[in-house]
Amino acid sequence: MRIVVSYDIPDDTRRLKMAALLKSYGERVQLSVFEAELNPYQLKNMLGKIRELMEPEDSVRVYLLGKDWKKRTLTLGRAAPLSFPEDDVI
Amino acid sequence: MRIVVSYDIPDDTRRLKMAALLKSYGERVQLSVFEAELNPYQLKNMLGKIRELMEPEDSVRVYLLGKDWKKRTLTLGRAAPLSFPEDDVI
Repeated sequence: MRIVVSYDIPDDTRRLKMAALLKSYGERVQLSVFEAELNPYQLKNMLGKIRELMEPEDSVRVYLLGKDWKKRTLTLGRAAPLSFPEDDVI
Repeated sequence: MRIVVSYDIPDDTRRLKMAALLKSYGERVQLSVFEAELNPYQLKNMLGKIRELMEPEDSVRVYLLGKDWKKRTLTLGRAAPLSFPEDDVI
């Protein structure tokens, strides 16, 4: 199933780690938004790792788009994300 | 229908305007993510205004979650967004 993950993480180090974690599951589409195609096992696995990494001040939202996700996703403007400086660090 | 809008807008002024625009349609759930309950007319109206405001370097993604959105939305950690400094400006 297609999922979207967006996050607000004030701490720089944790934010980098979250980006690296999500990159291992899917594709970065915006600075703090990833999309991934996961089966239920992978989703459960990813959620467990997200919870392990998070602190109470962090916010992560996961949206399950389901099979007909292409009809549910509109991309306006720049489709590919700008290059992320931190990408060279991880 | 329930929708999610996320954006990456490098320009500060335009980003403020986008936040103000989306605030008029729905609720800010993260720094650059809004959720809204819109009918097709409102959605079309909002998309038109988003397109008017955007420049090619900007990225806006709109996800249509549909009726069973509560089952499709997982909130981890802080549910309410941190206060946004720009909120006092708009």
